[in-house]
Amino acid sequence: MDNTRPRMRWWGWGEDGNDGPVKPGARAMLTEACGWPDGVDNPPIELDAVQLPTSTLPDAAREKLAAVVAADHIREDRATRVSHAAGRSYPDLLRLRGGDLPYAPDAVLYPASSQDVDRLLAICHEERIAVVPFGGGTSVVGGVDAFRGGFESCVCISLARLDRIVSIDEESLTATVEAGVFGPDLESDLQEKGFTLGHFPQSFEFSTVGGWVATRSAGQQSTGYGRIDENVFGLRCSTPTGVVELRTTPATAAGPNPRQVFVGSEGTLGIITEATLRIKRQPEATVPDAWFFPDFASGAAAIRRLEQEGLRPDIARLSDVNETAFGLAQLGSELQRKGLLAYLRVRGIKTPCLMVLRYDGKASDAKARKSAGRAIAKELGGVSIGGAPETMWEKHRFSTPYLRDQLLTHGVLVDTMETSAPWSEVQDLHDSIRRDMEAALLERGTPGFVLCHISHLYTAGCSLYYTVFARQEAGAEMDQWRALKTAAGDAMMAGGGTITHHHGCGADHAPWLPKETGELWPRMLRAAKAEVDPAGIMNPGKLMNGPEEL
Amino acid sequence: MDNTRPRMRWWGWGEDGNDGPVKPGARAMLTEACGWPDGVDNPPIELDAVQLPTSTLPDAAREKLAAVVAADHIREDRATRVSHAAGRSYPDLLRLRGGDLPYAPDAVLYPASSQDVDRLLAICHEERIAVVPFGGGTSVVGGVDAFRGGFESCVCISLARLDRIVSIDEESLTATVEAGVFGPDLESDLQEKGFTLGHFPQSFEFSTVGGWVATRSAGQQSTGYGRIDENVFGLRCSTPTGVVELRTTPATAAGPNPRQVFVGSEGTLGIITEATLRIKRQPEATVPDAWFFPDFASGAAAIRRLEQEGLRPDIARLSDVNETAFGLAQLGSELQRKGLLAYLRVRGIKTPCLMVLRYDGKASDAKARKSAGRAIAKELGGVSIGGAPETMWEKHRFSTPYLRDQLLTHGVLVDTMETSAPWSEVQDLHDSIRRDMEAALLERGTPGFVLCHISHLYTAGCSLYYTVFARQEAGAEMDQWRALKTAAGDAMMAGGGTITHHHGCGADHAPWLPKETGELWPRMLRAAKAEVDPAGIMNPGKLMNGPEEL
Repeated sequence: MDNTRPRMRWWGWGEDGNDGPVKPGARAMLTEACGWPDGVDNPPIELDAVQLPTSTLPDAAREKLAAVVAADHIREDRATRVSHAAGRSYPDLLRLRGGDLPYAPDAVLYPASSQDVDRLLAICHEERIAVVPFGGGTSVVGGVDAFRGGFESCVCISLARLDRIVSIDEESLTATVEAGVFGPDLESDLQEKGFTLGHFPQSFEFSTVGGWVATRSAGQQSTGYGRIDENVFGLRCSTPTGVVELRTTPATAAGPNPRQVFVGSEGTLGIITEATLRIKRQPEATVPDAWFFPDFASGAAAIRRLEQEGLRPDIARLSDVNETAFGLAQLGSELQRKGLLAYLRVRGIKTPCLMVLRYDGKASDAKARKSAGRAIAKELGGVSIGGAPETMWEKHRFSTPYLRDQLLTHGVLVDTMETSAPWSEVQDLHDSIRRDMEAALLERGTPGFVLCHISHLYTAGCSLYYTVFARQEAGAEMDQWRALKTAAGDAMMAGGGTITHHHGCGADHAPWLPKETGELWPRMLRAAKAEVDPAGIMNPGKLMNGPEEL
Repeated sequence: MDNTRPRMRWWGWGEDGNDGPVKPGARAMLTEACGWPDGVDNPPIELDAVQLPTSTLPDAAREKLAAVVAADHIREDRATRVSHAAGRSYPDLLRLRGGDLPYAPDAVLYPASSQDVDRLLAICHEERIAVVPFGGGTSVVGGVDAFRGGFESCVCISLARLDRIVSIDEESLTATVEAGVFGPDLESDLQEKGFTLGHFPQSFEFSTVGGWVATRSAGQQSTGYGRIDENVFGLRCSTPTGVVELRTTPATAAGPNPRQVFVGSEGTLGIITEATLRIKRQPEATVPDAWFFPDFASGAAAIRRLEQEGLRPDIARLSDVNETAFGLAQLGSELQRKGLLAYLRVRGIKTPCLMVLRYDGKASDAKARKSAGRAIAKELGGVSIGGAPETMWEKHRFSTPYLRDQLLTHGVLVDTMETSAPWSEVQDLHDSIRRDMEAALLERGTPGFVLCHISHLYTAGCSLYYTVFARQEAGAEMDQWRALKTAAGDAMMAGGGTITHHHGCGADHAPWLPKETGELWPRMLRAAKAEVDPAGIMNPGKLMNGPEEL
């Protein structure tokens, strides 16, 4: 397989052929909540019509780079440049679909090895060329936007050819993997040998190990299998001034933990070319369960107790009233939906909140945990119709991002925001973020519809994940989005949350980093960065590099 | 209680009255292995005879500091200065007992609040006074040695009066605690309310929350309850140029994780004054178990499988042949010991390796895990005499450090070293570290006796913890120790280990930090430090500050 072929269509999510029509129930609900914009049909522009900045890569630099990767792995054609100009944030989608790209890499480089990456970074450092590392390009926070940070030229270094599983240590249950390995390739290779990483972000199909590590990713099973930062035991990072190799160590007390600085560094320190990850034996059984609760508070209490009482669900999500309603609205048959709601009403549940769970492990153990969990759910007023809602959710769990593309064509804004907080602050934070996003949208005359779920459980708290819909404000789409984003971010800060639980900082969240940690920490990060990247070529405008003015 | 009174005797471990005589069996074993040095009686020197550097705190600085903490909380008397001059590493003990202290703080300051600490650090920054933060002073790696790093004056800031549990969030299962709270005080307060932190380093009785967080501590139950770095969700750190407050967040993807930089910073960035920690409900049951294995390899395979198959022992230790023999040699009765050995021999175990386990939780769950664990132990050739060896180990688990003091009086060197490694490297590393330490001691004419155990289990690996005995090389005690330490550290590096799993870096391990991580990481740390401590006053000579020439 030629990994240098982009896996995603250049203007949106994933591959063509996966977009169904917006389901009538969803459309009806958005019409009621936001006012469906009748007659809008805004397909993406043609690739040839995209306004692309002229390439400015000096010939001398190109020659030096070509000495490392050979000329056919320096690509400067339109399709390649556009495909590597941005990720899949809402602003990215606006710019791509509209064909108004203020930035793009001059060239995309495809090194074949870690050592190639070392050499390319050394050249870029010498030549003062900005570098944007690129895995799958699925960032939803502007993490791969090809900013050049004041440099004349900018290249994108794709890790697509670093696609090997280097080794599997079956005794230590670790796998050493190159950065460019894509999720499905990794899982199928591991599963063939009886193992799994268990890392399934929504971007799973199109994202890479290096991207996961660089962005401190979490997946839909991270409650059970751990976030990526919990699963990295060693790594190799190329920087403009040398290589950092962190040996594989299950735990160390040798000062501050360098793994936890390179994990999440988002390409600002260098390029992670290889990581050693914890793997697990594939579970003997995966046991689904699902419950409806009369309100968000009782569901939250149940899901909290599941975690705190040690029942260790591997997947756990609680949708609030809006998200549950939106999910039910997309059910196949209206009859089915009405029947379910009637059933729940009889049992005292008028505004259902759906909790889906999955327990992995030895069959007997998974069933015992499920059974103990059911006692808690019942105690808190839950009603179950069996595990089917979990199975159904799982079946569609990678398809939601496609909906964004369709809604944009219809003139509907859709974005997601996420945070985490201690349990004692979850209910207030849930309410205040929603309220502030709704207020910001209403103020612009475009009422919003806000869904939320709890996921990623910890004994101390959980993540809150929002999906927001609104009519697009024609001609002021970016301003509208910025107002929404600001309202959400500020509400997270005010309510004791973090600006991101697992999307990363990128360009979009960079303004909130000093608000969350204070000014000293970003200063410390910038000082540490200057040691490995004194010229500041690595991923300008992201994370502690602050947002770039466009 | 007056927390400003030192909890440990100035010249050694703990409190007087806890030193029993060296058990005859232990003495016999050390005599055989190392040659017991007959007739040596080297008690510690008298306090008045300690050679102490003259205090050099300028009056102007003293006045400024006194404006913050009041004159009775700046102490400059001999007892206080000596008690805060060093920790409890082997070099510390040599210097203290010999009364030849090349360093000591000019004064010890006792702030009453986080804000006091802020003010003191600002003054020390202005006046260019070196600062050594001090919790319980139990460091075994020179972490609190009162080096002054080229500054004219040095003060020790004791956290003893920051002794409050600020709040307990029962819903989120977290406790916010001031840095100076001692282990037993914290646990008794938590347990009164039905909670536990479950953090029991061997220093438990004399160490503090701030010390645990600053040194990335792990305890004897950390396999089940987590290392301290896994249990810190928020913290407050005073630095010479301002305060870093990291909000309580169960998890975040906002870039590199600042918690994991301040945790383990060992006072080089500032003083951690408060931390928010995960707590757990006290377990309903604690179920002990213990096994003897025919050799280290089979025991290691068993303990690995316990962890990898999800049986989650909360305490788990496997002693190698030497450590098991040394433990049995200290048993109350020779008859008992011989009976046990005969029993094991009949069952095919000639060189027993003891594994002790404890399962905490709901009684039914803990028993089920124990039962599943027993099947694994049996499969690997283990023989059990019930849980008594675990109970016995637990009873004495805080008393071993006292043995050091007694052995030193008798002219016997004793030190501990620890590392961690992936399971696939554990056996080789176990052998090579032991071999290299024995060779280094033999070369000096003082044959060593080396014990080792596995503890702190991870799916990917474990820690290896060594205890080493040898006759002291009279007149060259420090050189002898340095040769031993170098052999151990170099063997760890060569064999894929870390220089420390839970003792921290301090002064003693600082030379190995760049060997373990490469030079770039310590440079990054020094650059980050310069942002918050531009004058370099914080804990000179430790960690990335490199070892100080004495």
